Amino acid sequence: MIGTNQIRVGVIGCGYWGPNLLRNFVENEAAQLLWICDLDAKRLNAMGRRYPAARTTRDYRQMLADPNLDAVVIATPVATHYTFAREAMAAGKHVLVEKPITASSREAEELIEMAETSKLVLMVDHTFIYTGAVRKIKEIVSSGELGELLYFDSVRINLGLFQRDINVVWDLAPHDLSIMDYIIERQPEAITATGSCHIERGIENIAYLMLRFADDFIAHFHFNWLAPVKIRRTLLAGSRKMIVYDDTEPSEKIRVYDRGVMTTRTNGDADKEAVYQTLVSYRTGDVWVPKLDQTEALHHICQEFLDAITTRRRPLADGHAGLRVVRLLEAAQESIKKGGQLVEL
Amino acid sequence: MIGTNQIRVGVIGCGYWGPNLLRNFVENEAAQLLWICDLDAKRLNAMGRRYPAARTTRDYRQMLADPNLDAVVIATPVATHYTFAREAMAAGKHVLVEKPITASSREAEELIEMAETSKLVLMVDHTFIYTGAVRKIKEIVSSGELGELLYFDSVRINLGLFQRDINVVWDLAPHDLSIMDYIIERQPEAITATGSCHIERGIENIAYLMLRFADDFIAHFHFNWLAPVKIRRTLLAGSRKMIVYDDTEPSEKIRVYDRGVMTTRTNGDADKEAVYQTLVSYRTGDVWVPKLDQTEALHHICQEFLDAITTRRRPLADGHAGLRVVRLLEAAQESIKKGGQLVEL
Amino acid sequence: MIGTNQIRVGVIGCGYWGPNLLRNFVENEAAQLLWICDLDAKRLNAMGRRYPAARTTRDYRQMLADPNLDAVVIATPVATHYTFAREAMAAGKHVLVEKPITASSREAEELIEMAETSKLVLMVDHTFIYTGAVRKIKEIVSSGELGELLYFDSVRINLGLFQRDINVVWDLAPHDLSIMDYIIERQPEAITATGSCHIERGIENIAYLMLRFADDFIAHFHFNWLAPVKIRRTLLAGSRKMIVYDDTEPSEKIRVYDRGVMTTRTNGDADKEAVYQTLVSYRTGDVWVPKLDQTEALHHICQEFLDAITTRRRPLADGHAGLRVVRLLEAAQESIKKGGQLVEL
Amino acid sequence: MIGTNQIRVGVIGCGYWGPNLLRNFVENEAAQLLWICDLDAKRLNAMGRRYPAARTTRDYRQMLADPNLDAVVIATPVATHYTFAREAMAAGKHVLVEKPITASSREAEELIEMAETSKLVLMVDHTFIYTGAVRKIKEIVSSGELGELLYFDSVRINLGLFQRDINVVWDLAPHDLSIMDYIIERQPEAITATGSCHIERGIENIAYLMLRFADDFIAHFHFNWLAPVKIRRTLLAGSRKMIVYDDTEPSEKIRVYDRGVMTTRTNGDADKEAVYQTLVSYRTGDVWVPKLDQTEALHHICQEFLDAITTRRRPLADGHAGLRVVRLLEAAQESIKKGGQLVEL
Repeated sequence: MIGTNQIRVGVIGCGYWGPNLLRNFVENEAAQLLWICDLDAKRLNAMGRRYPAARTTRDYRQMLADPNLDAVVIATPVATHYTFAREAMAAGKHVLVEKPITASSREAEELIEMAETSKLVLMVDHTFIYTGAVRKIKEIVSSGELGELLYFDSVRINLGLFQRDINVVWDLAPHDLSIMDYIIERQPEAITATGSCHIERGIENIAYLMLRFADDFIAHFHFNWLAPVKIRRTLLAGSRKMIVYDDTEPSEKIRVYDRGVMTTRTNGDADKEAVYQTLVSYRTGDVWVPKLDQTEALHHICQEFLDAITTRRRPLADGHAGLRVVRLLEAAQESIKKGGQLVEL
Repeated sequence: MIGTNQIRVGVIGCGYWGPNLLRNFVENEAAQLLWICDLDAKRLNAMGRRYPAARTTRDYRQMLADPNLDAVVIATPVATHYTFAREAMAAGKHVLVEKPITASSREAEELIEMAETSKLVLMVDHTFIYTGAVRKIKEIVSSGELGELLYFDSVRINLGLFQRDINVVWDLAPHDLSIMDYIIERQPEAITATGSCHIERGIENIAYLMLRFADDFIAHFHFNWLAPVKIRRTLLAGSRKMIVYDDTEPSEKIRVYDRGVMTTRTNGDADKEAVYQTLVSYRTGDVWVPKLDQTEALHHICQEFLDAITTRRRPLADGHAGLRVVRLLEAAQESIKKGGQLVEL
Repeated sequence: MIGTNQIRVGVIGCGYWGPNLLRNFVENEAAQLLWICDLDAKRLNAMGRRYPAARTTRDYRQMLADPNLDAVVIATPVATHYTFAREAMAAGKHVLVEKPITASSREAEELIEMAETSKLVLMVDHTFIYTGAVRKIKEIVSSGELGELLYFDSVRINLGLFQRDINVVWDLAPHDLSIMDYIIERQPEAITATGSCHIERGIENIAYLMLRFADDFIAHFHFNWLAPVKIRRTLLAGSRKMIVYDDTEPSEKIRVYDRGVMTTRTNGDADKEAVYQTLVSYRTGDVWVPKLDQTEALHHICQEFLDAITTRRRPLADGHAGLRVVRLLEAAQESIKKGGQLVEL
Repeated sequence: MIGTNQIRVGVIGCGYWGPNLLRNFVENEAAQLLWICDLDAKRLNAMGRRYPAARTTRDYRQMLADPNLDAVVIATPVATHYTFAREAMAAGKHVLVEKPITASSREAEELIEMAETSKLVLMVDHTFIYTGAVRKIKEIVSSGELGELLYFDSVRINLGLFQRDINVVWDLAPHDLSIMDYIIERQPEAITATGSCHIERGIENIAYLMLRFADDFIAHFHFNWLAPVKIRRTLLAGSRKMIVYDDTEPSEKIRVYDRGVMTTRTNGDADKEAVYQTLVSYRTGDVWVPKLDQTEALHHICQEFLDAITTRRRPLADGHAGLRVVRLLEAAQESIKKGGQLVEL
């Protein structure tokens, strides 16, 4: 079904993630898949057979030259994001690009400026902030139910695919950094990061990041490609309640704990110890496991991209969101190179 | 039953841990509980009623003056360890002291020297290294089965007892640092640590430690008194196999994963990418859950202390083991105070 | 501390469960432990040393002859419950007896009549109905929140202690049958039970029970001494919500699922299949994990026994509760012997 | 790619399971998908667009009339299996049919005879016996490692799809009955089954089956469409070792427990109790989690079907395997109707 108001989309890159994007745009009635592009002829032909209505090409310039094309989706290695996005916007196309948005903050800044100047939509595929789980956490935090936020602790480890062009930070951290950025809406002041290379010299396969903020709130991350077990768990503690988000759970991904510490200051007493003990006490209550929207996050992303184009509004995961994450990745990389030294942001 | 060869023991401190030590010495036929000492009359009387054969006193000097007393067990706040241990040794008594051994490395060094000069046993209660789980891990590591060790990652978090005199590092880190020290038998070269105080100013309730070694081996720790869930899990990855030690499991605490990465270097090829992909590959095999000795660790500790006294040998957890842990605690504290700066060891 | 209003208690049987009863009565200020009785001199002396204020005897008649004794607690093998309870009541003592109350319903009926005639308290130690978990389930069911009850499914399996005098049904079923009896407050009409003897001829180590009620509600039980894993899980499904009670969980023992089926009857339609599909649909909502009272169940049992004596009221787990369970055990045994034949109740 | 030796396949039924069969035959180079058949035009067209090389029809007779067609795959409601299979074989086609093979044992017997007379392959899609997990269990059992088999206990419950044409036994039991049949290779002598209808009168949504064998080995099953949690767990206990098979685990589906009971008969003793205690003792050792073949079971099924056609051999899941399962389903149904009465097999 081809409607006159459909956004006509071309996808560059048919590797790991590209086929998922292809499938979601094909299934979305507001879009029409016009072009599929990949350097690898085998992958390109496979996708071409799957979606015979789309044209295929190994030369992205051919695709960009099509005046009927409205938008370009980029699912290629990080190092190429900037070039493809810039040329697509130069050709007047809207752009949705895989995370991280670019390989440097300078590149991201250029793309943002280009998008604003040319009134084009620039969006980054921060997948997780469109999941039912993260949107529910956002909703709970926004309601103030957790009280004052105290810390964010995220572990994303697995015996995973070893990347050859980027380290574990550039590979995995965009997920958790974009989640944190979306939920807490605050910018850190400094970062320390450390890592180690056990497989390939120069490519960290394990890394720890610590973000410091203006007050006592802290955020810590553990990324690991070389772990025997798969753990994807985030703790978000507030002064009144705490959330555990376990993404390996099939449906009960979020648990809200009515737990915390109660402290009261008094004027003291002769027997100070006894007084203190009554002042700091733990509180444990019920646990609540909210039902979550089970829609595939990528569906929401494609829809948001198409809506943003149609209504000329900014998507949630816009260029600025992409830039904020890339700045943290750069700072983390710098801290790792300096042996864990503090890097101001 | 009182034998002529029994070690006559006195215990100072009947708070949280003291009653466990009392019970274990009473049940050990190689020991005779002679004295119970605590400043708190209520706790002292309760223990006195439970063990009517022992004498009780609020004045530890009275206990130390007893020429029949062979050994003193110290289960008091950290700040008092040094004084009690020094006076006990000055009175010619062997000493078993709670972890951490002292509040400073200088104090620990003094106690070590004193013990060596006076030929007395000085032992620290590093409980976990006497558990069936940790001894099994040690056995596996010693066999070389894991290959080259890559990293040690430990998480010990809970909604725990808030301490008033020490922070979460001094409270919880002695457990994991002594486990690591025992298993890997290597000394780190530097440490970075960060933490935050959400309950009481100046007393960290959450902290992260990172130890760097001469090569790519790293060790990382997460300690937390303010977590909604109880996690006590250590990952120990080797180049051939990996261990997950989950202390919250009732019996299956250790899992040995036959998993890892296989890398082979070749002379290269025209199509480098394809070559590389054949060189780095993941390997997953069986998982093995070894049966563990279920004996209470404290039983082994008491037995080792008594044996060390009888045979005049050094216990496994001697003053030097205690000192190594305290040095790491001091360095972690220093790094935290300096905002996460690297501290050379 | 001995008060004039304290109930003076004697305990017969210092085996597996007796020491727990002793401890709870000693710690209860409304009681005074007067006598400890066991045929085994070693166990008797051990308990005597632990509680020196109590008198010990191997002859229960000596204990029953004491006019100062108010109540007798019986923690002996099942076969002896009736004799001890009858003689205790004949001597004018109130009685708390281990589960199951007797080895036959006839014995239980006699004890009930004797207790009523002599105005004595007769209570059975149905431990689980005094736990925070089961009392919370009772509270939820009583509120009507689950809707109409549909089924009760309980699994209690382990590599457990093999009993020599009774089979797995008499050993484990009193727990789940008393829980069911307490929560649903309905009597089954018939039972089928099957089992098998893999260790000792004539002593079933695995058994399955199915209770049928007047309507479609059913209850099923799996008891097993020879299972590789420990499972203690009960499902209680209602038409609106469902409960999972997992007793192996340290604190989150109960989960209330807002899940069920929605069915609506309509007048039908030409395309019946399509209509039907809209009429039966599944509903899944949040999960709620209520906080539970963590008090040891035995504390509540002792307190209830003492209160019942003082106020001359019936305890929750009275002789009739004990009898209802024994009748089910007898019927289950009969069905097993008849190869799983239906036994009317 | 179309080879001259490819088996030309037609599939009837594009509902829930049909698309999986279509995909597997399309991806198998030994097969060529020739026909797709479904009464529902919408589903038929959707599959036709996905596999444009195949012909589509709503009339299965058109498909069966094609002389180029070698084999027919039937993925339709149970009630229609017999007719489609019979007509396919009458047209000289080999047949692979969804589980259960037919709606009655008489139908299955007819199909078996027809297949034998006409030298055609008749196979039933007992999916689970082709999984890596079940094949590993079979391998372990066959090695004798478990010792003498004692019991088989299977639980398959969920908040599942309510079927309108069959009850929970006919829907779910074929899985576990075929697994048991494959692993233990023994036929039961009798069955008792009970169930209840909470959603639709006459259609059991919960059922329990108990199979009795010539000796003390027993097998028990719990099937449930109306459970708040998803459980798919089988216990298989042997006299030496025990297996837990948890199909909800993503990769560690099988655990082999080195656990059991040791019993020794002696000549007795004066103190019989003491002697007995030394004779029955529990043994717990390591747990082993074997690595499993992760290939999709359906791939093996399709391959086996194609191989059986090519080499004219019997497949593992032949008509007799299908018949054995249907006989148990019929007997279970009969026992349920008679209120749980024993049905001899």
